This record gives sequence, structure tokens and C-alpha cells, in this order.
Amino acid sequence: MMTTSEFLQQIIQYPEKLNSLVCEAKECAFQHGNITRINETPTSSEAVTYLPFTLFPSPMPKAIILQALAVQTHFNILVDKISQDPDFLEEALAGYKKIHHADYEKILFRRERNSTMLHHNNVTFDDSLSRHRTIQVDDFTANLFDIYKQIQQEGLTQSIAVGLNRIDYMVDHREDGPSPLKQVEINTIAAGGLYVSDCLPVVHRHILRSAGLLEESKYVQDRNNSPGMCAALAKGWELYGQQKAVILFLVESHAQINKLNHRVMEKNLWDRNIPVIRRKFEDVYRRGSLHDDRRFFIDGQEVAVVYYRYGYMPNNYTEESWDARLMMERSLAVKCPDIGTHLAGTKKVQQVLARPGVLERFFPDQPQVVEQIRATFVGLYTLDMGPEGDKTVEMALAAPERFVLKPQREGGGNNIYGSAISEVLQRLKDSPERMAYILMDKIQPFIVKNILLKRSAPLQISDCVSELGVLGAYVRYVFHIHLMYLCRQKVFYFQMIFLLSYIVMNTIS
Amino acid sequence: MMTTSEFLQQIIQYPEKLNSLVCEAKECAFQHGNITRINETPTSSEAVTYLPFTLFPSPMPKAIILQALAVQTHFNILVDKISQDPDFLEEALAGYKKIHHADYEKILFRRERNSTMLHHNNVTFDDSLSRHRTIQVDDFTANLFDIYKQIQQEGLTQSIAVGLNRIDYMVDHREDGPSPLKQVEINTIAAGGLYVSDCLPVVHRHILRSAGLLEESKYVQDRNNSPGMCAALAKGWELYGQQKAVILFLVESHAQINKLNHRVMEKNLWDRNIPVIRRKFEDVYRRGSLHDDRRFFIDGQEVAVVYYRYGYMPNNYTEESWDARLMMERSLAVKCPDIGTHLAGTKKVQQVLARPGVLERFFPDQPQVVEQIRATFVGLYTLDMGPEGDKTVEMALAAPERFVLKPQREGGGNNIYGSAISEVLQRLKDSPERMAYILMDKIQPFIVKNILLKRSAPLQISDCVSELGVLGAYVRYVFHIHLMYLCRQKVFYFQMIFLLSYIVMNTIS
Repeated sequence: MMTTSEFLQQIIQYPEKLNSLVCEAKECAFQHGNITRINETPTSSEAVTYLPFTLFPSPMPKAIILQALAVQTHFNILVDKISQDPDFLEEALAGYKKIHHADYEKILFRRERNSTMLHHNNVTFDDSLSRHRTIQVDDFTANLFDIYKQIQQEGLTQSIAVGLNRIDYMVDHREDGPSPLKQVEINTIAAGGLYVSDCLPVVHRHILRSAGLLEESKYVQDRNNSPGMCAALAKGWELYGQQKAVILFLVESHAQINKLNHRVMEKNLWDRNIPVIRRKFEDVYRRGSLHDDRRFFIDGQEVAVVYYRYGYMPNNYTEESWDARLMMERSLAVKCPDIGTHLAGTKKVQQVLARPGVLERFFPDQPQVVEQIRATFVGLYTLDMGPEGDKTVEMALAAPERFVLKPQREGGGNNIYGSAISEVLQRLKDSPERMAYILMDKIQPFIVKNILLKRSAPLQISDCVSELGVLGAYVRYVFHIHLMYLCRQKVFYFQMIFLLSYIVMNTIS
Repeated sequence: MMTTSEFLQQIIQYPEKLNSLVCEAKECAFQHGNITRINETPTSSEAVTYLPFTLFPSPMPKAIILQALAVQTHFNILVDKISQDPDFLEEALAGYKKIHHADYEKILFRRERNSTMLHHNNVTFDDSLSRHRTIQVDDFTANLFDIYKQIQQEGLTQSIAVGLNRIDYMVDHREDGPSPLKQVEINTIAAGGLYVSDCLPVVHRHILRSAGLLEESKYVQDRNNSPGMCAALAKGWELYGQQKAVILFLVESHAQINKLNHRVMEKNLWDRNIPVIRRKFEDVYRRGSLHDDRRFFIDGQEVAVVYYRYGYMPNNYTEESWDARLMMERSLAVKCPDIGTHLAGTKKVQQVLARPGVLERFFPDQPQVVEQIRATFVGLYTLDMGPEGDKTVEMALAAPERFVLKPQREGGGNNIYGSAISEVLQRLKDSPERMAYILMDKIQPFIVKNILLKRSAPLQISDCVSELGVLGAYVRYVFHIHLMYLCRQKVFYFQMIFLLSYIVMNTIS
């Protein structure tokens, strides 16, 4: 059996054959719905192009995929438990108090004083930018948490919730042992890219066959994310129990370039006789309303399920959007995700979960579940003053290429790699300033040769790394059974979670 | 129930709602494979658009559709019989001798003398153009017929043939009685538009639902042409009996703008484990060859089936193309269509079939079949000198709006309508020159309001007429059964035709 790598080295010699295969791949991708608006006309669907994809599929060990599927169930339960645990969320997000103008000024001043410290050698920071972004993220999380607390205080939680979580992984390439699956992030809101992922196996199988790699084509597994996501939303709608009520897709706008993928889900729901409407935060703010019984109406239609395809980023919100979000969260409508589930996916929660003992809080009697989840965490090492932190410094200086040195704030970027780690730690190792950082294992993903197909990009063999995304779809339903005859109105509370896990495999460069 | 017409009058008042619905229609069409290359980049699949379609489905009486499906079987048998009847074809196409240079000059001279006669009032003819086109068409048919005769003489006919015929109809709107189904044309080669037709019911049903016309949406019938076409090609491949042999799609070039629709068929065949290749006439001419046993090879691959998606127009051929076509026709490969079937679809044959007694030749003992086929023919009236022709003149002058006056040559165009008919016939009615024309019933199709969606075209309600296409797929297989024990090597010839009929409904403006 010829590997695609070997095949690539051959076919690159024959531009005409390669072009023909590439053309076939693009057209097959179009035919199977890999479609996005073009940049020149982002608000129009007159002409479309394809979302970038690789000519050949990316290999992923079967054991890794099975492991990811198995642990997804635990992750879904974990996210759902966190979403209903105000104490834990309060604790984890404690640092995310809303920053008022006066505080903001203070922080600016404090950071300005420290900023010189951050410039040395070739490790430079655009501190003004990162500071601004950090504050914005903090504000965002604080706003979400304010809504969460208000819902909790008012006792307005809807017992039904739909979760669609995508957990992204990379395989950490180790030469000294088995290469483990490592979590990159958890997405609990507006997890996307699933439809395109569904269509790619069909394209890849076809291209392998067309290239004469028949044996290889048999290894391409089908993926079926969209129907699973729709099944979960449909279940939420059904449990809401109003035949005429709609599922509202909360979208950015008609100008949303990737909205074509929502269409597939919308149609799937229509095919189940579930009416779907699409509205913006602005529409909800202007024309949405809560009835006395907290049923949520917009344009005369009752909303059974609010499915957020927007609202995942700070810049997705205006003051009006926050009001609209609060209204929807306070309503009886089933949310996907509800505010607690949204918060459970924040980076801060992810960091807290990695601390010793935290997972045990959620799975007190299930050490094997804790172990399975923890195995996917990337190593996080404290730089606190003391023997544990000293050990971290020692470890990092011994093999800096294996780690990432990260500032302890949210917002991404500004990570320190390689020899720069040594420089920073050599200088700070005996100072409390080292506590501003955290040391993390660096994932060293497998590199595979492939050809990236992207509109107007030249055809060339590239070194590619893959991210594996696993989608978990579930419906939480806390319901009361009145066992009238057996024990006189005793009420039992059940928690029911439907779990569906699907696989997304994104190949990124 | 609200009709789409009423709905259109309403929605046109709300541009925002209409735009949103139109946008949804386009995106749904994309998702279901209504895709074509854009004019700006006809040879590239980087950006694509949709083939024009209507926002709403076009109504068609159920009885008409059932009638069209019923008669399709007879048409398929008729086309197949004609394709194997050299005497009939010779007779029908007698006028289509190849025109040599000297003859051509004579014709030019003759026409030049007559051309002044063709200019009067607002009925003007670009005679030089039409003359050129006529000769070209004649030459084309003559070339096809030359190949047919050579195959017949050499006794090289392949007993298996795949037919994919699309018959196009219009409904002739009569106020004085039932509106009949009338045939517009028979396409026996490269019948297209079927995949787009397959995807439109999904789009239309979705749009009706989305517009709130739920009841109407239930009337939209699914169409499923592509799988039927592929089933016929696959059967031809199977009967050829070589696991490793391929189906060759004879295409225009990689620049063929509508080739994206072939992809669907190619993939369907690959999914049946049938390898598909795509070649041009030029490739066949340069690299194709016949083995001694007449098996046809190209690039080292044996070809089981040649499926012509090109070669239906005179300008599709160069001298080399004709050689390539002859080679393929002489080969053992199953053709779709074979040369006889191609000829059976010419306009000239269509005209001959309308003559009294001709259908009876093919269905001698089946008057009800003859009746069913003939019922779909548009009335053709001779203008020969004599009492029958005189009656035609009288009829035409009495109600010219009901007819079309057509020059007796092939090539289309130059038809005379309305008051111009009266003018021409008043002048020619007593002259043998009237024999250069034929009088035909004019189809007066139903007019339905709809919105045509076409890239960059403005949104407006248009008067639309519909063409109904019915696809017939069949495999002819003449096979020999040796009944050794029963009657000592007596050979029976069976003719087996698999018939599949599908519906295409094109809405045209």
C-alpha cells in the first residue's frame, strides 16, 4: 500500500495530473456542501467558494479516536455538572469581577510600570494590545457570570438544556513512548465546522479512489455530526412540548460568511417538522418579549429552543445584546447552551480543572473517570515560590523546548518558547515575579505531508498538523415523577442526559 | 390554501422578507449541488455560482405527468427500434448527403438569388448566417450517417446499448377543452440538467415551508434522475463483463462550464466500484486504440462504456474528432448512445415520424401505442401544391396566431409567427415556393407568475412558462441462448430493455 506521502512526491512531478485531481476534489467538495461566501462579497450568496481543506485525509491512530470518543461522555457530564455548580463557578471565576472605569485606570497604571520588564531580547510584547484584550475578555466573562448569578438568585433555571460541546485535541508526538491525546480546548458554544467535517470523508474517499489508492480509501471513516447535533436540538424542542413553537438560531447577521453551514441544520430540523427562525441579538432586543409565565416570544412566535450560533466573543455584544441575552436566559426557552454551560467552557475553568483535586470534586467515587479525563490534560506546572516551583524552574531550564511559558492571564498570545524560556527564568527564578507565569507542556504534534487547498493559493506540499475535534451532543432534562399511588406525592428528581459523540477531524497548517 | 402567485404579490411588497427568502433559496440550492462555474472564470472551480432556477415550483397537472411517464416507455422502444433500422434511417435522412464543395457553391448561388424574396416588412432574415448554419447541420447529420452505414456494412454493431433519452414537452393551453401534452424535442445524446432538476424539489419544498406555505410544500414531488441514469450505465458496464474496464465520460474539456453535474454521476458510479475516467475526443484520437478483437483501450485501460457528454453539436467536431468517434463506434465498447440512437434523435427523424403511417411501421399491431405517441405530436400541415396544401393555407390565414410557419430546413430559428404568416402566405399561396415551408401548430403554454433567480439579475415577478422533461433510461441487450439439450443448438435472440423513466421539470422564462 502506497502512503499518500509517497503518492504526493510522485504526483507533484506531473502538474497536469495534479491539477485534474485538485479540480476534482474542489468540485466534489462543492457538491457535498463545502461552501462558503467569497471575501469579495461577504454579504451575498451569488457566488461562493469552498472552505480550505486538504487534498488527502490526515491519518489518526484508531486507538486515539476510540479514546477520544470514550472520554467525551465524561467531559459532557463534567461540563454539565459545572454548569449547575454556582459555588464552583464563583470560585473559579473569582478574579473576573466586572472592571469599572476607576479600576481599569489603576490596572493600566500598574501594567505600565511593569511593562518595561517584559521587553528583553527578541521576546517582545505588544503590551498595550494584549492588555486591552485581556480586560475585554475579563469584562466579557464577568458579564456572563453576572447573568448566571441573576438567574440563580431568581431561581429561574430551565430544567432542560441542550449541550453541543466540541473538544479539540492534538496528538503529542513522543518518541520515547506512546503518543498521547492532549486536549487543546473545550468549546461549549457555537461549536462549528461540523458540516464541512461531515462532507470531507466523502471527498477524501473519492479522491483516493480517483488517484488509484483504492486500499487507502477504505480507511476513510464517515462522520455524521450534523444529524447528531440536530437530534439533540430536536429533543430539546420536543421536551419543551409546544408543537407550534420554533427553534431560534441566534446569528450574527445575514452577512455572516460561514452561515451557509447553519442551513444544513435548519433544513434537517424543518424535515422533522420543526419550524426554525433566524434572529440577531438586535431583533431579540427590539421585538422579543417575555410573557408573565416567562415564555419567550418574538414576532408573534413562541420560542422553544434558543440555539446560539453567535455570542461567543466579547465583540459579539453591545449593551443591547447583553439585555437580549439576559432576557433569553431568564425565559422558559431551552438554551443551547445555557449560561452555565457557556461559562463551563471558559479558559479559566479549564485551568482550574487541571489543579490537583478539582476533578475529584465532580467525580468523587469514580477515580477511573478522573484518570481518563486527566490523561488528556497537558501538564501544568506552578511557578509559585517554594520547593514545587523550584522544581518547575529546574525542569524548564533542563529542556526548555518541551514547554511553553505562559503569562497567567486570559486572552491568549504572548507565550514564550524555547531559549527565551531559559532567559526569562534565569533572570526571574529567585524573584516572586516568576509567579506571573505558568509552565505548560508543549504539544509536539505529528507532521504529515499534504496539499492544502485554499482559494487562489498555490499548490504545494506542506507540513501539516492535525487537530481532532470530538463533538458531544446531549440533552439534560431534570424531571419530576409524581408517584401518587405508591408513596403519596413523593417527588423524585431524575437527571437524564442523552449522549451522542461524533468526530471532527480538522487538518490545520 | 394560498397559491404561490398570491403569495408573490404579497411578498414583493416586503423587500427585506423577499431578499431573505431568496438568499435562503440560493444557499439551499448550493447545499444540494446546484452549482456551476462562473462566467468570469469558466475554466476554474475556485468560485462557483448556481444555475438559474425559480424561487417557487411550477405547477404541472398530475394527469399530464402520468401521461408523460406512460408514453416514455413507448418512445424509448421507438428510438431503439429506429436506431436499428438502417432502411428507415437512410430514407429519413436521404436529403442529408454530404455536400461537396461544388454542390455547396451551387446552393449558395441558388440561395443568393432567392434571398431578396425573404426580406419584407419586419420579418427579416440573416440569410447568410442561416444558410451557413443549415449546411453545417446537414454536414453533421451526413457525417453521423456515414459512420452509421460503415458500422452496419462492417457488421460491427455491439448488441448492448445504453439509452438515456430526455423528451421535452410543453402543455398546450386550450380554453376550449383539455390542455394536451405536446412534444418539443427528443434528446438522445448528452441529455443534461438532470442533477439540478433532482435537487430543486428539495429547495422548493424548503422554501415553501419557510414561507409558511406548508400545505403547498406537500405537493412538491421528489425527482431522482441521476441514480436512474447511473443504474443504466452501470448495467451496461456489468453486461460488458470486465471488472477492470472503465466507463469513459467523453467530455468537452476541463473548461466545460457545466461539467460539475457530471461529477455526481461519476461519484455514483465510483460508489458502485465502477472506475470512471474522463477524456476528450482529442485524447481518444491521440492515445486511444482498438485491439484486434475490437476492444477499445486508452491510456492502458480497457473501456467498457463510452458515455457521450459531448459531440451533440456540429461545432463539437474537428476532423480528428470524427476519426475518434468512428473508432469508438467500431469498438466493442458499449455506447451511450450508439450512433443509431444518436441519429434517431435528429430533427429530421422527428419530422418524418409525424407523417401518416410512419409510427405504424414500428408498432404494426399496437394501434393504442401509436395513438399515445401521436397524441403528443404537434400538428404538422403540408404546403405541397394540391387540395391538402390549399386547405392548410386557408386554415393558416383564418387563424395565423395558432401556427408557426417554418422553413423546411434544419437548424432552427427563422420561424414566422402571427401576421407575418398571413403576409408570406398571401404572397406565396399560388406559387410552388410555398413548399419551402411547413405549417405547425403553435404551442401556447400556461403562463405562471414566478421569480427567476439568476446571478446578478434583479428580483422581479415574471411570466414564466414551463417545459416538462421526461428521462428514459434503458439498456438494450440482444443475447443468445443456446438451448443445447432441448433443440440442438437452436439460437434464440432476445431483446431485453430495462426501462426507467424519470421526470425533469425545467422552468424557463
